[in-house]
Amino acid sequence: MTSRVTAFFDALDRVRRPEVWIDIRDRLGVTRETSAAAGPLAGLLLAVKNNVDVAGLPTTAGCPGFADGPAVADAEAVARLRAAGATVVGSTNLDQFATGLVGQRSPFGGVRDARRPDYISGGSSSGSAVAVALGLADIAIGTDTAGSGRVPAALQGIVGIKPTLGMVSTRGLVPACRSWDAVTIMARDLDTANTAMAHMAGGPDARPIPADAPLAAPPRARVAIPAELPGMAPAWVEAFSATVTRLRADGVVVEPIPFTAFAEAARLLYDGGLVAERHAAVGRFVDDNHVEGDHVEGDAAGIDPTVGGIISAAGRIPASRMVRDLARLEQLRRRAMDALDGFDALMVPTVPDHPSIADVRADPVGVNSRLGIYTNFANLFDMCGVATPAGTAGGAQFGVTVLGRAFGDAVALDLARRVFVEPETVAAPGATAPLGPTGPWIESAGAPFVDLFVVGAHLPGQPLEHELTGRGARYVGTAATSPAYRLYALDTRPPKPGLVHTNGGGAEIAGGVWRVPSAGFASFVRALPSPMSVGPVELSDGRMITGFGCATSALDSAVDITAHGGWLRYLDREVSVRADVDGPSRLVAGITG
Amino acid sequence: MTSRVTAFFDALDRVRRPEVWIDIRDRLGVTRETSAAAGPLAGLLLAVKNNVDVAGLPTTAGCPGFADGPAVADAEAVARLRAAGATVVGSTNLDQFATGLVGQRSPFGGVRDARRPDYISGGSSSGSAVAVALGLADIAIGTDTAGSGRVPAALQGIVGIKPTLGMVSTRGLVPACRSWDAVTIMARDLDTANTAMAHMAGGPDARPIPADAPLAAPPRARVAIPAELPGMAPAWVEAFSATVTRLRADGVVVEPIPFTAFAEAARLLYDGGLVAERHAAVGRFVDDNHVEGDHVEGDAAGIDPTVGGIISAAGRIPASRMVRDLARLEQLRRRAMDALDGFDALMVPTVPDHPSIADVRADPVGVNSRLGIYTNFANLFDMCGVATPAGTAGGAQFGVTVLGRAFGDAVALDLARRVFVEPETVAAPGATAPLGPTGPWIESAGAPFVDLFVVGAHLPGQPLEHELTGRGARYVGTAATSPAYRLYALDTRPPKPGLVHTNGGGAEIAGGVWRVPSAGFASFVRALPSPMSVGPVELSDGRMITGFGCATSALDSAVDITAHGGWLRYLDREVSVRADVDGPSRLVAGITG
Repeated sequence: MTSRVTAFFDALDRVRRPEVWIDIRDRLGVTRETSAAAGPLAGLLLAVKNNVDVAGLPTTAGCPGFADGPAVADAEAVARLRAAGATVVGSTNLDQFATGLVGQRSPFGGVRDARRPDYISGGSSSGSAVAVALGLADIAIGTDTAGSGRVPAALQGIVGIKPTLGMVSTRGLVPACRSWDAVTIMARDLDTANTAMAHMAGGPDARPIPADAPLAAPPRARVAIPAELPGMAPAWVEAFSATVTRLRADGVVVEPIPFTAFAEAARLLYDGGLVAERHAAVGRFVDDNHVEGDHVEGDAAGIDPTVGGIISAAGRIPASRMVRDLARLEQLRRRAMDALDGFDALMVPTVPDHPSIADVRADPVGVNSRLGIYTNFANLFDMCGVATPAGTAGGAQFGVTVLGRAFGDAVALDLARRVFVEPETVAAPGATAPLGPTGPWIESAGAPFVDLFVVGAHLPGQPLEHELTGRGARYVGTAATSPAYRLYALDTRPPKPGLVHTNGGGAEIAGGVWRVPSAGFASFVRALPSPMSVGPVELSDGRMITGFGCATSALDSAVDITAHGGWLRYLDREVSVRADVDGPSRLVAGITG
Repeated sequence: MTSRVTAFFDALDRVRRPEVWIDIRDRLGVTRETSAAAGPLAGLLLAVKNNVDVAGLPTTAGCPGFADGPAVADAEAVARLRAAGATVVGSTNLDQFATGLVGQRSPFGGVRDARRPDYISGGSSSGSAVAVALGLADIAIGTDTAGSGRVPAALQGIVGIKPTLGMVSTRGLVPACRSWDAVTIMARDLDTANTAMAHMAGGPDARPIPADAPLAAPPRARVAIPAELPGMAPAWVEAFSATVTRLRADGVVVEPIPFTAFAEAARLLYDGGLVAERHAAVGRFVDDNHVEGDHVEGDAAGIDPTVGGIISAAGRIPASRMVRDLARLEQLRRRAMDALDGFDALMVPTVPDHPSIADVRADPVGVNSRLGIYTNFANLFDMCGVATPAGTAGGAQFGVTVLGRAFGDAVALDLARRVFVEPETVAAPGATAPLGPTGPWIESAGAPFVDLFVVGAHLPGQPLEHELTGRGARYVGTAATSPAYRLYALDTRPPKPGLVHTNGGGAEIAGGVWRVPSAGFASFVRALPSPMSVGPVELSDGRMITGFGCATSALDSAVDITAHGGWLRYLDREVSVRADVDGPSRLVAGITG
């Protein structure tokens, strides 16, 4: 792991991107910490956006005068990643007070694109995104209120997970808009981002996850896309269209829905009363230090003129205007959710274009607004999202975001896996290799579920699988009982096996495990037909798990098929035998119908 | 039911309280509608606070100039009660724009107490409360933002249920503070109020009820009370103390907690930025019509001077102040919920005193603020509450409110039943008799649950009952299987029976049904020990219900006790036999330990 640290400091010198960082920790400290690191994230170097506290580093939020000395303690999100083994290497540059999507609004320097230095990094989590894209850091903390985590992820060709609001503690974060701030993770691949989220999310501060939070997208997912694509450059329309085609070819149903409610919500954030939240967050500091006017250099405290102007103006909004805009927002949210009814997720291009640094200089506010068309509404509507690389558009990285309803994080993650395209790497040699795949992070963050062992009609591909996938269940994999069970072919429609514990003369019976959201598990058990039951089953590895059983009385008319070792093996044998003897039998019709 | 209508119109003339009403429907219409009424609320007369739409009546919100003609459609809450058989008799007076707790802020007249006309009714749902107290209406719709449903209920000696925010649709309501408005029900007894709520709450507009919403208070409930009782008149302190004593005698644990966070939230509502919501609701109308100044008669539109002043001032609050106060509120909410940790509910006196009309004239704003000390914080903290009569204090009605966490409505209702004291009636003869008891209204409003048939250790009073009561389950009552089951005494700790379906030679087995919140049901099944299972069980009335079963293999070491017809009867016999033969046996120890 010392080599990882060496690679980091070597690359740091080589890439010559000082604007990425606000502070870098000393080499000795990083080396010691990395050597001592233990846990699933050990060896991963972590960059932290400088509006999130890292003990010992000043939290400037992109404004030198804002920090009064180093932070005393880590933000909760940082502490949780460290506890899982990650090492903080430094704090990263950002659009000041997280107010911007361009990455250019900072007295620490505008952050340049990792691949094309004349272009913008995107922001506000600009430094974090470029640090990951360049392979300096393996993971980075960003924040996202209106797209600040997703926009730079898209432009830098990396993954950005923006969780449902509140699922990552915001303790130790300088708020941008307290009601809509989310802490995000950035990584070069989905599995690493997912594992990091599994450790960063949850804890006592976090918003509790409801019992019906899905753990996977259904096998035949339905994805909505905007019927109109405002603001998109032609190459980007083409790239988005190619992604849709790819998704359809993969068996996903993709259908357009009206985008008007989403677009109007985005406008509310910029043109309406909601921006008052920015003043509530840091307005006193800005009012005390900002000198209004058209001065390019900013003031003594280092307040960016564009940012200072936005925040000062936000202080003059009357509360009743804000309340009315919140009421309008709620109407729009309902309309948008109605439009999404029947869909598992909404897929949008993350940004409509990749502006150059010159573009932003020419029109700092206009370019910024346009960048947020496809991101602004998400937090306002309490949606979650996964921004993922999906190819290129012209010379630029192209990305899409899969957006889910609140707590639909696992669904968005699953669908993002299906559109992810590995981008051309610019990662410095020595970056840590991606972590392996695991279950969706919300399972570790406290999503309530029950693991269910099934042996028959609920196995993947079998006739009753939909009773579990329709309840948001995730298939974990195959498993077998301890050798203390017998299996019977029951006389039911559709045909099902009955698993029975025995005190002697049993065998290991093959099956599979589903992880079922608790609410869906309850409704599933309530709807169980006779003679089925559920109760503890011992697996071959000794674990006790909830699994299927059946009433003893059903065995009177059943056939003992223990010798087959499992229902699927029995079916294979049975189907071929019957097909030979009888042609298509009732049994086969029942199985395939 | 025609006699009910006759009684209403007779009483209306006799009681001489014209200020209770804003509009009364014509006698012919009310008679026709009542005669044709069908459903569980048929025969109940309903009064509706005039900030809630009733088709055909103008919605003045207590301001004559505010209504522009009769409402076109019923508010959702009104429509739902009508669909269940209730008949609207008229619209009731209120503190204008629901801004007040005194019942005196209305150009339609100050509403006088039902029993002592020199005293205030309380408000803002003043007319609704007095209409119910006088027996004119059987149920009434109120609204409650800061106590407007609870305060007049307490002063008028009736029941007021203030549900968790959003559980009753607010469609068709003139908002007071959109974020914290709740539609409430008033009745003279808890069962009638509960049944009415069961029909008024829920529907497509309503906030979804989470899978862990409890359906009952646990048997040994823990109730918090304020450690300090600010603002209380001496007789009221005594009355509250007597209620606490009564509750303790009934086996409830009652302990004081700090009240500071609750009291500070109440102050935020009056002195802080949150009142801006009132301007957002009706501020344009007030700004256009209200002439500021110290004029007693109000202006042409009929705006009450106190109310007009409050709402105009609310329009001058900056949004950033409101956002900061919301942040402070969230901190206070967390502190308050931490203080409530380990308690099932918080019990407070609903009001600290009963002011006279002269008291309010002398200090309209001060008296109003004091009345809200124990009610203001509830909606701000997303708590639910049941205000119930609990005796008298001096010559006044004394009431307490049992407050629960969000979705703890069934817990609050259960505990309110234990403190309810039937008040001395002032109801006019002919009022409809109270409805019978039913399950808590949130079950009808969509709380997710599973009914579970148990036959042994989970029956009430048995050793594992706590596994269900600890998960918010409610005991529905006894039941028995169809005559197709056998019962076995299993060799388990604690001793348990095993229920087994049989194809012949069974008997009806006695047991009981628990209604278990879905989330708790899932965790209960996940934790089931061998050899227990759950699955469909047929009851003696033919219903299929989820119930306990057991693995066949456990019967090898079990004793057939079918002949006893149930576990409790078996235990009675067994315990007495063993006590005679052996003295206290291991079995007895297991049962009682």
